[in-house]
Amino acid sequence: MGTKVAVAGASGYAGGELLRLLMGHPEFEVGAVTAHSSAGKTLGEVHPQLTPIAHRMIEASTPEVLARHDVVVLALPHGASGAIAAQLPEDTLVLDCGADHRLTDPQAWSRFYGTEHSGTWPYGLPELVHADGTKQRSALGDARRIAVPGCNVTAVSLAIAPGLAAGVIAPDDIVAVLANGPSGAGKALKPHLLASEILGAATPYAVGGVHRHIPEIEQNLAAAAGAPVSLSFTPTLVPMSRGILATVTAKLTADAAAARPAWENAYADEPFVHLLPEGQWPTTAATLGANTAHLQVTVDERAGRLVAIAAIDNLAKGTAGAAIQCANLALGFPETLGLPTAGVAP
Amino acid sequence: MGTKVAVAGASGYAGGELLRLLMGHPEFEVGAVTAHSSAGKTLGEVHPQLTPIAHRMIEASTPEVLARHDVVVLALPHGASGAIAAQLPEDTLVLDCGADHRLTDPQAWSRFYGTEHSGTWPYGLPELVHADGTKQRSALGDARRIAVPGCNVTAVSLAIAPGLAAGVIAPDDIVAVLANGPSGAGKALKPHLLASEILGAATPYAVGGVHRHIPEIEQNLAAAAGAPVSLSFTPTLVPMSRGILATVTAKLTADAAAARPAWENAYADEPFVHLLPEGQWPTTAATLGANTAHLQVTVDERAGRLVAIAAIDNLAKGTAGAAIQCANLALGFPETLGLPTAGVAP
Amino acid sequence: MGTKVAVAGASGYAGGELLRLLMGHPEFEVGAVTAHSSAGKTLGEVHPQLTPIAHRMIEASTPEVLARHDVVVLALPHGASGAIAAQLPEDTLVLDCGADHRLTDPQAWSRFYGTEHSGTWPYGLPELVHADGTKQRSALGDARRIAVPGCNVTAVSLAIAPGLAAGVIAPDDIVAVLANGPSGAGKALKPHLLASEILGAATPYAVGGVHRHIPEIEQNLAAAAGAPVSLSFTPTLVPMSRGILATVTAKLTADAAAARPAWENAYADEPFVHLLPEGQWPTTAATLGANTAHLQVTVDERAGRLVAIAAIDNLAKGTAGAAIQCANLALGFPETLGLPTAGVAP
Amino acid sequence: MGTKVAVAGASGYAGGELLRLLMGHPEFEVGAVTAHSSAGKTLGEVHPQLTPIAHRMIEASTPEVLARHDVVVLALPHGASGAIAAQLPEDTLVLDCGADHRLTDPQAWSRFYGTEHSGTWPYGLPELVHADGTKQRSALGDARRIAVPGCNVTAVSLAIAPGLAAGVIAPDDIVAVLANGPSGAGKALKPHLLASEILGAATPYAVGGVHRHIPEIEQNLAAAAGAPVSLSFTPTLVPMSRGILATVTAKLTADAAAARPAWENAYADEPFVHLLPEGQWPTTAATLGANTAHLQVTVDERAGRLVAIAAIDNLAKGTAGAAIQCANLALGFPETLGLPTAGVAP
Repeated sequence: MGTKVAVAGASGYAGGELLRLLMGHPEFEVGAVTAHSSAGKTLGEVHPQLTPIAHRMIEASTPEVLARHDVVVLALPHGASGAIAAQLPEDTLVLDCGADHRLTDPQAWSRFYGTEHSGTWPYGLPELVHADGTKQRSALGDARRIAVPGCNVTAVSLAIAPGLAAGVIAPDDIVAVLANGPSGAGKALKPHLLASEILGAATPYAVGGVHRHIPEIEQNLAAAAGAPVSLSFTPTLVPMSRGILATVTAKLTADAAAARPAWENAYADEPFVHLLPEGQWPTTAATLGANTAHLQVTVDERAGRLVAIAAIDNLAKGTAGAAIQCANLALGFPETLGLPTAGVAP
Repeated sequence: MGTKVAVAGASGYAGGELLRLLMGHPEFEVGAVTAHSSAGKTLGEVHPQLTPIAHRMIEASTPEVLARHDVVVLALPHGASGAIAAQLPEDTLVLDCGADHRLTDPQAWSRFYGTEHSGTWPYGLPELVHADGTKQRSALGDARRIAVPGCNVTAVSLAIAPGLAAGVIAPDDIVAVLANGPSGAGKALKPHLLASEILGAATPYAVGGVHRHIPEIEQNLAAAAGAPVSLSFTPTLVPMSRGILATVTAKLTADAAAARPAWENAYADEPFVHLLPEGQWPTTAATLGANTAHLQVTVDERAGRLVAIAAIDNLAKGTAGAAIQCANLALGFPETLGLPTAGVAP
Repeated sequence: MGTKVAVAGASGYAGGELLRLLMGHPEFEVGAVTAHSSAGKTLGEVHPQLTPIAHRMIEASTPEVLARHDVVVLALPHGASGAIAAQLPEDTLVLDCGADHRLTDPQAWSRFYGTEHSGTWPYGLPELVHADGTKQRSALGDARRIAVPGCNVTAVSLAIAPGLAAGVIAPDDIVAVLANGPSGAGKALKPHLLASEILGAATPYAVGGVHRHIPEIEQNLAAAAGAPVSLSFTPTLVPMSRGILATVTAKLTADAAAARPAWENAYADEPFVHLLPEGQWPTTAATLGANTAHLQVTVDERAGRLVAIAAIDNLAKGTAGAAIQCANLALGFPETLGLPTAGVAP
Repeated sequence: MGTKVAVAGASGYAGGELLRLLMGHPEFEVGAVTAHSSAGKTLGEVHPQLTPIAHRMIEASTPEVLARHDVVVLALPHGASGAIAAQLPEDTLVLDCGADHRLTDPQAWSRFYGTEHSGTWPYGLPELVHADGTKQRSALGDARRIAVPGCNVTAVSLAIAPGLAAGVIAPDDIVAVLANGPSGAGKALKPHLLASEILGAATPYAVGGVHRHIPEIEQNLAAAAGAPVSLSFTPTLVPMSRGILATVTAKLTADAAAARPAWENAYADEPFVHLLPEGQWPTTAATLGANTAHLQVTVDERAGRLVAIAAIDNLAKGTAGAAIQCANLALGFPETLGLPTAGVAP
């Protein structure tokens, strides 16, 4: 009999993607699907793509409903997961796709979110390289609470961390500019997320150091560099439903020939993170629906900067795929079990 | 050990989707991947989304290379498959994703293609209802040559055949208008397929009874109706990479209350063809990457017409998924084995 | 000194397009711009594209503010224009871009809108051919109240009316299927209008004879045919911000050779309605931002149906451009004055 | 009688946009439209959006045809304009939309283009601020040869030059990342420009200091800074037909409060370059079809970087609009004559 997984916040885009991936996983069984305002609807009303389970009812997100599961994945607005998690058994694996438990520094949380911090959970980016040569994976082996990373964070961290860990780039002036599909902003009914506004348009948002993913990226990159980092971060909405393309540059501090090997070493054995052959650049389309990150790196010697570019699917490797990858690790399944590695393209 | 499958014409969009689906199939093993002008390249150069097999080389499409397989899938331009199939062993399962072997009437072939017909193979649309109450599935159980349907054909046939078989609509004045993603037109370097031309644009093509899918649709609908049909068919390119939305109308000849049951009866037990709950209309996005067709039907009593709408992914249920579904049937595997039923949305 | 024009409902998409076109008109001067919930904002906050007048304030939509103008254009939700118009001077030219005053049959209004009818105004589709050989233009010469047509209505009516007026097609079984950009649905914050839902998706809506544009189309086509018509009408949302492509078919009742001349005769002298050269099909992109309609017509002899296809920009020729064209006519300016005839493509 | 303008290379996207804008210009009259492989076709076959002149024939691009005009605009592949210009009378105003005559340093040309330089013409970016407080406009007043800037160049230069001229940012480490619509790459039949490849995808190109627009940007920014600059430049294809969003960051060297005034001072009197109100960020959609650039600037004090973002339409202000603006200046017309300042949005 399978491992029962509940999804709280199932009506959102991350929730839908979690269910899609769980349906294809050989060990996980979809248990309760819960939500707030969509409780009482069928899944098919909010996620018509989940054809075989479209008839299932969405329940209310109560601790009682969620408790009867081996795994609970929380895909809730920030601020909501701490209270629910506190009411779940300690040996239930709880994965929080929200931001609440990612940061280690309560002050960073308060500065960007304006509320009190809910505490720090083991951080679910297995491939993140650390300054000491280890990877974040080692923190997840027996975890029962895991903070799933933010989607922009995953893209930027995977793109540039190897160079920081290897000491080939400077940590003090990293610049990241992202092209983002609007699904990362969720289903909120906001004017700037209307199709008429986004079709034919590229538009930046949260410019100037105010995006809430910044402290989480800096936390990751500091772990890689073994030193504080400085980051300029600008996301941009573009007309594709999913996908993040992160263009990250940093000052080169080593010989140009030393750059690529840092990425080769970091990711040679990673099943989901692929450094493309030299000369081939990532495209978000190649990662659609897959738990993969595609990377490329080069050196611009005239500008004295290294350029690393990563493409991911914000809902797959950026959120739901990462949650399942972490669940695989925490429960002792093969890390890749049930996770798609081929993207849906074109 | 798995069933070895070769894909000829692997560099095209259908070829890439075949490989993606084969990678996720528990019984099939990707064998030779062959192409014409792309031979000698890596798969990753033409299909970067196929991450785990991106390093594999594309070989030339010769009978020798293809012969060493249990299954050969041909994703070639029309006119090319007959000669290759003739050189493959009779007990090799050959699935032709091209048009060559779909039509039973050589004259219809000549009229639309201008060449001599290559002969007719069992036709691979398992869910197609016949006038006698059977389904096309029964022709595929031990086939070793199967003609995979055209993508537009699948959408229109699944949408309207049940009403013809049940006698609730007239066969003599069917009108189909389709919204199509450009991937159905393949990778041909034609000006009207450039992104600059298609972004922000809806454009009809092959208007006025000249599209080559027409005789194939008429053949299917005649099988459903038990009588000749008349079809007006207009496809329209719209700015989405994949997807077909077929809006099909026909004159109602029965009581309006008799309409929906015809579809319910036809598809109640079908794993891939889903009649949505009343009031919910199909969207192509819900079928992306999945081997599913979503349908809805209603009656416009003022106009005296029934409207049936089907959504599919042209590369999945429309081509590559259909091929694998047929292979499952022909080889005695469960029909649904290894085929995704949840779409990648949003 | 120019003719002063007020725009009520200026914060919506139609309002923005009205202002853009008015800014380029040599005789019109933008007067008050008014709205409901956006009153007090600058124009630039809701329409950043209106660069030179972005600093202007949006006022509240009161009769006092609107009365001090030669022309008032109402771009309001249906039901709102009657009361405002009643408080404006009789010699003020009032153009209603909403539906309230388009229908001549109060029962048709009540059946589709569920409220009492506000009365009928001269109908602003100048190029509409009538059964008696006249055009609708003749009703607009000295009008001071004009009902601007619906966008879908304009596309379908222009596409098929000439064939009805010439008697080459039957009026009793017309089928129209449309590809529509979401801007036609306005800025309403509805989940199905979110970019994540529309990107990569084609989705029908208001299927089965329930769309509120149907009685208006039937009214126009009946005027062209000199007899009642029957219409099946299905719009489809596709991922382009603007544009309508209407594919309209009807049973051919004359010799195929008689078809095209009907369209040639109807539109030979029209400055905005262009029958394309034979073999060239319309694309919505070619009409973007222009007050043009592109048409093509052909006969499918196998199916016994004529196919007429029209492309327009729903906000330009479909709404705002039509309003200004009507204002030109009503005020005695050249009909084409200040209206763009070149589209913004690609 | 009007000023006659010939367009050479009229079949490309820049050529089409030139003709659209010329049609709306009160002083210019469209003369010969010429092309290479499209000679003999009608304009409507390649540019259906140019409705009123769609019947005109495209001629061959010979000096004889072009010479009989007051103005000749060259929209040709690089390398082609020098020879043609040499055969045109010296008092004919020749505007080159290609790259050939933009660079002042022949070595920079050779390094990026691999051929011999054709010589330098006055550079057509009127709003470019210089270190000495003048603007580039002063070089254009009586010019008869003008090099129209590259589209990416215009976006990046307008975005960041004021800060360099005012000395509030450092010239030695500028980073620019762009989101680009594919129309900037022209109509070339290349696989990566197919709609199927670009829909749903964000993809970088020419990464690592190899893009040919780099020396031109550096030339402009050096003029603004009065010192050499160092630039990291990464363009990214996104799924919109037109538009460039340039996100440009540089190290802040002054008090944060001094930043915005530099932009305010530079562009306060510019009719086409608009610094948006604080807090509002540019979107490419707001500039579609208009000769405008929208800008915003802020300081990220944590990162120590200033972020300036510019949005333009690559074919309008980025190419064809710029050419006409320069022609207005060179011929003594008002600089803004006939150029749209309201964008087509949504």
